[in-house]
Amino acid sequence: MTADLLAEPHHDGAALHVPVEAPELGDTVPVFVRVPHGDGAEGVWARTVQDAEPRFVAGRIDRTTAAETWWRCDIPVHNPVAAYRFLLGGGADPGYRWLNGSGTHHHDVTDTDDFRLTTAPPAADWARDAIIYQIFPDRFARSARRDPPPWAVPAEWDDPVIHEGPSTPLQWYGGDLDGIADRLDHIGAVGADTIYLTPFFPAPSNHRYNASSFDEVDPHLGGDKALARLAQEVHGRGWRLIGDLTTNHCGSTHAWFTSALVDPAGTERGFFYFTPRGEVVGWLGHPSLPKLNYGSAELRRRMVDGTRSVAARWLRAPYELDGWRVDVANMTGRHGDDDQNAEVIGALRRTVDETRPGGLLIAEHCHDASADLRRGDWHGTMNYAAFANPLWTWLRDPAAGLTLSGKPVAPTRGPAEAFLATVRAFRAGTPWHPMAASWSLIGSHDTARIRTITGDPALVEVAAGLMFTMPGVPMVYAGDEIGLTGGNGEDARRPFPWHRPDRWDRRTLDVYQRLAALRRSTEPLRRGGLRWVHARGDALAFLRESPAGRLLVLAARAPHDPVRLRGRLLGIDGEATNLYGGAPALRPGADNHVTLPGDGPTFQVWQL
Amino acid sequence: MTADLLAEPHHDGAALHVPVEAPELGDTVPVFVRVPHGDGAEGVWARTVQDAEPRFVAGRIDRTTAAETWWRCDIPVHNPVAAYRFLLGGGADPGYRWLNGSGTHHHDVTDTDDFRLTTAPPAADWARDAIIYQIFPDRFARSARRDPPPWAVPAEWDDPVIHEGPSTPLQWYGGDLDGIADRLDHIGAVGADTIYLTPFFPAPSNHRYNASSFDEVDPHLGGDKALARLAQEVHGRGWRLIGDLTTNHCGSTHAWFTSALVDPAGTERGFFYFTPRGEVVGWLGHPSLPKLNYGSAELRRRMVDGTRSVAARWLRAPYELDGWRVDVANMTGRHGDDDQNAEVIGALRRTVDETRPGGLLIAEHCHDASADLRRGDWHGTMNYAAFANPLWTWLRDPAAGLTLSGKPVAPTRGPAEAFLATVRAFRAGTPWHPMAASWSLIGSHDTARIRTITGDPALVEVAAGLMFTMPGVPMVYAGDEIGLTGGNGEDARRPFPWHRPDRWDRRTLDVYQRLAALRRSTEPLRRGGLRWVHARGDALAFLRESPAGRLLVLAARAPHDPVRLRGRLLGIDGEATNLYGGAPALRPGADNHVTLPGDGPTFQVWQL
Repeated sequence: MTADLLAEPHHDGAALHVPVEAPELGDTVPVFVRVPHGDGAEGVWARTVQDAEPRFVAGRIDRTTAAETWWRCDIPVHNPVAAYRFLLGGGADPGYRWLNGSGTHHHDVTDTDDFRLTTAPPAADWARDAIIYQIFPDRFARSARRDPPPWAVPAEWDDPVIHEGPSTPLQWYGGDLDGIADRLDHIGAVGADTIYLTPFFPAPSNHRYNASSFDEVDPHLGGDKALARLAQEVHGRGWRLIGDLTTNHCGSTHAWFTSALVDPAGTERGFFYFTPRGEVVGWLGHPSLPKLNYGSAELRRRMVDGTRSVAARWLRAPYELDGWRVDVANMTGRHGDDDQNAEVIGALRRTVDETRPGGLLIAEHCHDASADLRRGDWHGTMNYAAFANPLWTWLRDPAAGLTLSGKPVAPTRGPAEAFLATVRAFRAGTPWHPMAASWSLIGSHDTARIRTITGDPALVEVAAGLMFTMPGVPMVYAGDEIGLTGGNGEDARRPFPWHRPDRWDRRTLDVYQRLAALRRSTEPLRRGGLRWVHARGDALAFLRESPAGRLLVLAARAPHDPVRLRGRLLGIDGEATNLYGGAPALRPGADNHVTLPGDGPTFQVWQL
Repeated sequence: MTADLLAEPHHDGAALHVPVEAPELGDTVPVFVRVPHGDGAEGVWARTVQDAEPRFVAGRIDRTTAAETWWRCDIPVHNPVAAYRFLLGGGADPGYRWLNGSGTHHHDVTDTDDFRLTTAPPAADWARDAIIYQIFPDRFARSARRDPPPWAVPAEWDDPVIHEGPSTPLQWYGGDLDGIADRLDHIGAVGADTIYLTPFFPAPSNHRYNASSFDEVDPHLGGDKALARLAQEVHGRGWRLIGDLTTNHCGSTHAWFTSALVDPAGTERGFFYFTPRGEVVGWLGHPSLPKLNYGSAELRRRMVDGTRSVAARWLRAPYELDGWRVDVANMTGRHGDDDQNAEVIGALRRTVDETRPGGLLIAEHCHDASADLRRGDWHGTMNYAAFANPLWTWLRDPAAGLTLSGKPVAPTRGPAEAFLATVRAFRAGTPWHPMAASWSLIGSHDTARIRTITGDPALVEVAAGLMFTMPGVPMVYAGDEIGLTGGNGEDARRPFPWHRPDRWDRRTLDVYQRLAALRRSTEPLRRGGLRWVHARGDALAFLRESPAGRLLVLAARAPHDPVRLRGRLLGIDGEATNLYGGAPALRPGADNHVTLPGDGPTFQVWQL
């Protein structure tokens, strides 16, 4: 399968192959496919889909280089999402191949993995260049001791977290927003410039995903004024601040819900779903998390639709949040035979665009988000499906026995081939830009810590290396950069040990700092395409290419057979300088092959 | 890839694995997956998707046979389409596999190929048991000489067809509906019981896809009364009659369109799309085929919505058509950023259900119809994508150089592995029942003749064998059964040589008759599942299994290495009688293997 990836024809949605980023409906857009010499392709066509009907566009040769022929096809953007794949004529039976987002195929394929142009504009430049730092406020830092809320199980900062059982959501450490503001220098030192806060609304839990109000900041976090102060500090540094909005449900202590219970004839009753027996429908069956019913136009107005909505309010002064990460985005507006997700998220997107031009909208959608992402409302997701899950499968410690990604079995390790197959499958169905703007993460407040998953700081470096160099916006979960541990999402919410610098993993912090700096200084890591070079067992390699430059990335989880690549196909011109990892420069040998080092674990980047 | 298909775990949507055909929303439905002994699976879960969120359902062992363990999972039908796939724990890295509609996978997969339960009821029993006979009225039979219409290029019945150029649609042979009525005995002798007529509406062409009215039958076909006579004859035999409705467009001679041109302020103006410069939008750019704009509620009412619509009228007495094949179903209601397909086809389905309960609705959708079929409005498609295209690629004469399936290249042959991969890919995304009710065809009025495609009557038998034995409703294009030829759709519209019986291929007619009889007498061919046994190069084999019985089918395009199968996995009990093809009965040898014959071309069916 992965015999010689470099010898395969290639296309992706980044600038080198699709120069127009945001076409208008009715435009005709040139796209390019490169075919290595000796491939045998006798002709190239783009198969487009217009009004659900396939049409072929003949390609023509645009230019020829030492290594490859660049074919150009002009794609009509007849629909808001213009699907296309390439037909390459000639070669062995059946005399043609298809090239789509999952690779080349010698048999007919469905439209699922077609490349796609979209008229939905990509995320703003700031959001594509960002490095995100995720903070779970109760556990990051506190500016002062506060009185615990009445529901809380108070904890001292050094206490172990209660990672299972009824006390887990109630254990309260008292981190607050001013505490975050006090620690911006650390966040800057990691290299991040965008802070994503899990919810700050008042709620009877430490995670606050069960909001009792969307109209104020939890007083236990410092209230509205603390958020305004934090926002001012963040924006003063030229940074960005992202909130966390739970559009799928609220808490059962929310006034909307108590009104709905008290007054079955009132407006708020229509904000929720009730069974014929009068029981409320809750998120995953939890009655404490009543699911919102957007069949109510009044709920849409209050929550997402228009400048008076909750979604708009916090994007305005004095907070001017720069966007929302939306919780349970996949389920929002969906219940049984009722599916209003497209309308609700479409309204949310319009609200963000109107209230905070350039504002970001990121979905929590942990599995196959392709259908939702194609609609164009989301700028991206938290990318578990096409990044974190396959990364964990490849790099995990098989002895740790962790269940991950929601599966009821504890996997062992998968080879690099499985990483490649999964990444390709999940990337293929989504247009380039929402995938490239999705947040690459190797851990979050909902998962085990990468240090525990891999069991080895050297593998954390490989994981972080991929996070900072694959297409996607890196999201650092606060504490990963100093090697915090934890075996599941709750266990991983350990307070940041500010006062225990001896417990910090300084080597890992250095890794994060250097990777972040590399990403900032290297445009192809932020805007380049993705071309696979190698994926076998313990090692994988890929290219990031843009009009501004070309990089080669090698990731290995263990020692492996050195990877030999044909210099001509690699397009290496003289010597390739190492930019990260400390390996020697690359240069073709007498046989014009380049050999990548076979040690591991290792993470290396070269400039071609 | 196809090393030992029989050793793989299996599930499909037919009765043996999904006993409930049409669940209601809110039901919990048991589904079964069979795992051969020695597979290594340590546990089975169904991963369902509810409100776009994955949930796992633990399986339990239902029963154990000599060959396999049957696991049962109870699937909640929480949404109108309930997607699920199976997670099998244990085995090699990564310690689990997925089983979905495209097979087993050792890495994470998207939801695309999930199995799917749907609350949409399947096609009526008559439509699932049917054998369709497709007739292009101008070329099938004529009851008398008629005066040609003024636009026509009249032809004598023996004249060669004009298969390209401007005269192609105008060449008029004068076949009519009474001519069809005169030939029902032949249709019955072939084994068919359902006639599908391409359009009978008046139009200035021989194909009549450019209707000048939907309110009468073309007088040149005999008019309304001839259709009523034909319908009475057909129904009198207990047969069915299907019409052809062009919902995407009409002809430019239609009164709606002339009104739209004459009166830009009139109602009918809104029935069409006009560019800002006032040019009408036509199907694939043809102004003679103005595309219908269902943004007009009045058009919806006239065409598809309700008992006074065109769609309803012909389903009522005295015609009582039994359903519609809908032309350009994929494009209907779709134009640029306007997509009303779901609403239009949903209305059409309601109209059919209300007017003619049990009526059939079949889409012309020649490529990836999975998204449309999942909605549940269609009972099925004309199955080019998951049947005809891969069949042609496998069985075609590589020397013929025909372009097929709309591709701009003339393929050579693909191996059986490509047939399997394509069939699996295109079947996977669609629920079982709309795929099983889709029309399996090996040629139509839009394609070259199978005799010309394969170049060999022995391969026509293999093609027809697959048409009658794979899941799907066979559709015989009139003339294929006597070996008519033709190199493209127009060329293939040669008049049926009733008066030249010397030109009939009697052997092929006998093949069709015996295959149709086999299908009628053998329930698993009409209701059974589909389990692949073998696919390599020149040969493929599969099982059709239902609670009523089990069949093994072997198709070979050429001599090949005899296929050896493990008797235990095959579930062979003593001797398996040959039902078609004349090969010896099968019985396990001393090593308990069964060997299928290696000659070819051949088509064989055994009862296990």
